[in-house]
Parts: sequence; structure tokens; C-alpha cells
Amino acid sequence: MAHSNPSASSAEDRGLSEEFAVPSHVEEVKKLMADFAEHHGSAGRRVVLITSGGTKVPLESRTVRFLDNFSSGRRGSSSAEYFLDSGYAVIFLHRHRSLYPYTRLYTGVNILDSLQLETDKGDTGHVLVNKEALPNIAKVLKRYQAVKVSGLLLPVEFNTLSEYLHLLKAAAQALSSIGSKAMFYLAAAVSDFYIPASEMPEHKIQSSNGPLQISMKMVPKMLSPLVKDWAPQAFVISFKLETNPSILLEKARRALETYNHQAVVANVLDTRRGYVVVVTKDTQYELLLTDEEVQKEAEIEDKIVTNLTAAHSQFISQQI
Amino acid sequence: MAHSNPSASSAEDRGLSEEFAVPSHVEEVKKLMADFAEHHGSAGRRVVLITSGGTKVPLESRTVRFLDNFSSGRRGSSSAEYFLDSGYAVIFLHRHRSLYPYTRLYTGVNILDSLQLETDKGDTGHVLVNKEALPNIAKVLKRYQAVKVSGLLLPVEFNTLSEYLHLLKAAAQALSSIGSKAMFYLAAAVSDFYIPASEMPEHKIQSSNGPLQISMKMVPKMLSPLVKDWAPQAFVISFKLETNPSILLEKARRALETYNHQAVVANVLDTRRGYVVVVTKDTQYELLLTDEEVQKEAEIEDKIVTNLTAAHSQFISQQI
Repeated sequence: MAHSNPSASSAEDRGLSEEFAVPSHVEEVKKLMADFAEHHGSAGRRVVLITSGGTKVPLESRTVRFLDNFSSGRRGSSSAEYFLDSGYAVIFLHRHRSLYPYTRLYTGVNILDSLQLETDKGDTGHVLVNKEALPNIAKVLKRYQAVKVSGLLLPVEFNTLSEYLHLLKAAAQALSSIGSKAMFYLAAAVSDFYIPASEMPEHKIQSSNGPLQISMKMVPKMLSPLVKDWAPQAFVISFKLETNPSILLEKARRALETYNHQAVVANVLDTRRGYVVVVTKDTQYELLLTDEEVQKEAEIEDKIVTNLTAAHSQFISQQI
Repeated sequence: MAHSNPSASSAEDRGLSEEFAVPSHVEEVKKLMADFAEHHGSAGRRVVLITSGGTKVPLESRTVRFLDNFSSGRRGSSSAEYFLDSGYAVIFLHRHRSLYPYTRLYTGVNILDSLQLETDKGDTGHVLVNKEALPNIAKVLKRYQAVKVSGLLLPVEFNTLSEYLHLLKAAAQALSSIGSKAMFYLAAAVSDFYIPASEMPEHKIQSSNGPLQISMKMVPKMLSPLVKDWAPQAFVISFKLETNPSILLEKARRALETYNHQAVVANVLDTRRGYVVVVTKDTQYELLLTDEEVQKEAEIEDKIVTNLTAAHSQFISQQI
């Protein structure tokens, strides 16, 4: 891989602070991430940065309306669990209120429907979990608490596209100290379009003005400066989601050529839970859940993570 | 109020099924709502239809991207509790995963952070709630369970703008049997703009095509057929949220003149939790939380509901 001079920032990189407001806490979070990477890196662990969930793109500066991307965060949150099982330390850069590791298993459950008062004790008794409402809760809770105590999971939240872009850059810089031991697993559904702050109306767009014409610019591709400038030694995976299967693999190959990173996980909206293709420059792995595996509630992310951690091992050994 | 012939549907009404796909379960839900209204109406209760949360407007028919409105559903879910306290039966027409009565008090709490395993019992023991993580949980849980048993709360979910529009129409027709005992409390943040199904691309919009131009049509105002045709005897409240305080009251008055309904709750984005103005044809009530009330965690919805239930009583007495 040709490494450019890290001080020569790319066009994408330069525009970032001009077009997208810098979140006030970015330096603080960057320090947290850098400490996390150094701590685990020096303990011989690999660190994966997982991005997860959709980005919010405001249409007004005092935002009432926004453009969003469909993404529950299921892929990212589930993958985080398998990376933790594989011994990775995980930075989980996720959209506020998107699915979270372990907790995701109980999403859609109304918490008050899953609790009951201890009988005959009134307000002073314990409140108990109804285990039928929360299957496997004792086991999942134990695992969740063990991960928390281990310090192997660092959650970081974003909400808007601007926050996502700046925090991703900060993460990439924070992880550059551990070189090839860092993996980027970019599963978030990032908007391709945005409205520059300078062209955004301050107040709520008035419907009395008639039909709405929205004109959006293209979001700079962060993958380019990430691979070239911010974390040139890291193992970088991007995701490609399409609704039209016929253009998917071609788009995955084109992305690898354009950005020169290690792999694309390609998937189609309708089948994304049971079938993906991991595309690298020289290989193409089809990963599939069998009917039997689906019945056993196996998850495709288990296979994706197994595939990628093996490829990461090979990648690290080639760098030495 | 001038009642038009109910069979002469308005222009807004006629366009509904043509431009917005009819959800498959709408007739089933309408029956549920009609039975609910009849049951509680004949028991002498009033029924309020609360709408809550934002609407999702797809940009593609196999949706990856959508336009959304900022709305947590806090106003609607909190108001539902005060209506239940006031003896109303409540149909809670809310956006999927927006805030829900009672449960809203624990939003943002990770459920796994609020539970603990009973000591020394392994996987077979109880799982208990950590009461510090969920303040007042025993009291709230009791109230939630009592409401559930009482059958006074009927939750109905929507996700897209199309679902919202059709379910609102169904609700209005379902509640028409109880006449002036029905209240509509339209707190949802409904999109003003949409893309007609006929103009929507099937597949994900390709960013390689360059900058995005979105052209959106204006959503028909449902308030007009609701007041004129669907539920002409009901007590109808709309909400007006603006970011610019200087145009707020004028817009509220104009809405009352246009739609000929009973009241507008006018509020400004930045101050909406502590200050609203209830505007009727002849009156204008400013409702405000004092600093002391804010400290005691009082909610402005308590005052809004008190104001409107009194106005509803007066409205009912005038119809007889």
C-alpha cells in the first residue's frame, strides 16, 4: 500500500471542519479512545472500531426536520458481541438509541411489561423480572456485566452526520498508534447527501411557501483520508448495502479499487440477515445461514466476524 | 359549526387513497377503535384520541432513506397519563418506538444496567430491579398495571406518513358514534411534505449520480375533512410548533379560522417544555411552569390537560 505523507491532508479532509460543525466533545472523546487503544494494544490485544446505525442530516439549523437512513444498528451491535467473544477490545461508535450489544436482544420489549412486584410487599418489596418476557435474561445479564467489568467495550455516541464524521476521524487518529492491530468495521449507514450549514435555513421551513425543493450536496467519502492519512496501517472493512442485487458486486469491487482498503461486506436489503459476500482484492467469500442455522437462531454476524478476524490475523502477519 | 354532507368527501379526503398506500390492517384497527369508543361511551366516559411522535416519509419505495420530523413523543405520552388520571379512555396513536405512557420515565436507561442477579443463586435465581437505576419503579409499575387491567388505554402504532393518515381517518370515523364526547388531541409532528408513490424511485438513490434534488409535494391537511366530514361533533385540538416565536400566535389564529376547530396549543421549540399558549376563537390562555414547579418535576402537560378537559366539559354542555 502506498502511504502518502500524513501531513498532506486530502481534499475530503480539508473540507470537514469548514462544512461540518465540530462537536464540542470531540477532543475529550479522542483522548478516551487513544487511551483505550494504547492500553489494550500494549496488552497484546487487537482493537476494532465498529460504526453502527444511521446518521441524521438536519434540513434546518434549529432542527425540526431531518433526512435519515434506515438502520436499526442490528448488524453493528451484534457484531460487537462476536468481536468481544473473539478477544477484541471494541470501540462502539453508534447512533444514539440504535441497538446496543446484549441489550439489543430485548429491544421492542416494554420494560414495564417485563417486571412484576414481589407479592404482598407493597412498594417496599423487590421488583422482579418476569423471565418469560426476557428470555435468557440471567445468562445475558451475566455476560453483559462481565464485559462491563473487563473494560473491553468503549461506547461512543453520535447523532448527526457531522458528529459521525468528526468522531470517525478522531477514532482513526486515536487508533493509529497500534498500527495493523486496529480494525475498522464501518457498518454504519452514513448519508451520501447533506445540506451545507451555509445553505441551511435557520427556522422551520414554512409549508405555506408551497412544495419543497431540497438540494443536497454529496458527503465527502471519509474512507479515502482514513485509509490514506489517518490510519494507513489499519485493517479496514467497509459495507455496501444495495436494494438491487445486480449492481452489488460491481460496486463492491469499484470501492476496493477506489479506496484501496482491505474488504467490503456486500449485502442486499431483503436478504441482509442471511447472506453476505465478503469481497477482497483477490477473493470473494459467500457467507450464508442454512435453514437449520436460522432455526437455531444463529446469526450471520458470527460468520462475518470469524471470516474477518482470520483475515486480520493474516494481514498482521504480512506487515511484520 | 356548519356541517357539510358527510357523503360529500373533500378534495383532501379523495386524494388520500390514491396518493398514500392503504395499510393492510386499517379496517381491523378501525373496528378495535370503534368497539373501544362504543364501550367507553356507553359507560359514560369521554374518549380522547392522542396522536404522538413524528412521521417517516420514504424517499425510495424499497426504503433506505427517509425524511423525518423531530419528535420524541414526550408531549403525547405524558398527556396520555394525565388524561387517564382525569378519567378519559385513551386511544394512543403513536409512532413506533416513540415514547410510551409510564415507560417514558425510564427511556434512555439501558435495561441491563438496571437489573441485578440474586446473589448466590446462579442462573436459577431471580433477576431483580436495581431501584436506584429506575426511580419510583414500584409506584409506576403499579399504576401501569392498573391502567392495563382497566382497559382504558388502547395503543395503536404507525410508522410512515401513509399509515398515520389512514389510521387518523379510521380513528375519526370510529369515534364519530360518541359525538361530542370524543376529543382529538393531535400532538404528532406530521410531515408537511411527501413524495407521491408514482414519483418515487424503486431502488436506493445512487450517490454516483451526483448531488441530490428532492422535489416534495405538500401533504393534504387532514384537519379539514376531520372537522368537516369524519367527526364533525368532536372536540378537536391541534398543535402548532414553531422555532420563530414572532409568527406563532398569528399562525395559530389562522389555523382556527381555516379549519374551524376548537383550540390550538401553540408552542416554540426552545421553550416547549415550560410554556404553551392555548388559543381558542375567543380566548388565549398562557400556561407556564414556575421555577418551583420545574424543581418539583411538574409537567406542563398536566396544565394543558386540565385546561382542555374543562373546555371539553363546557363544549359538551353547549351541544345538548
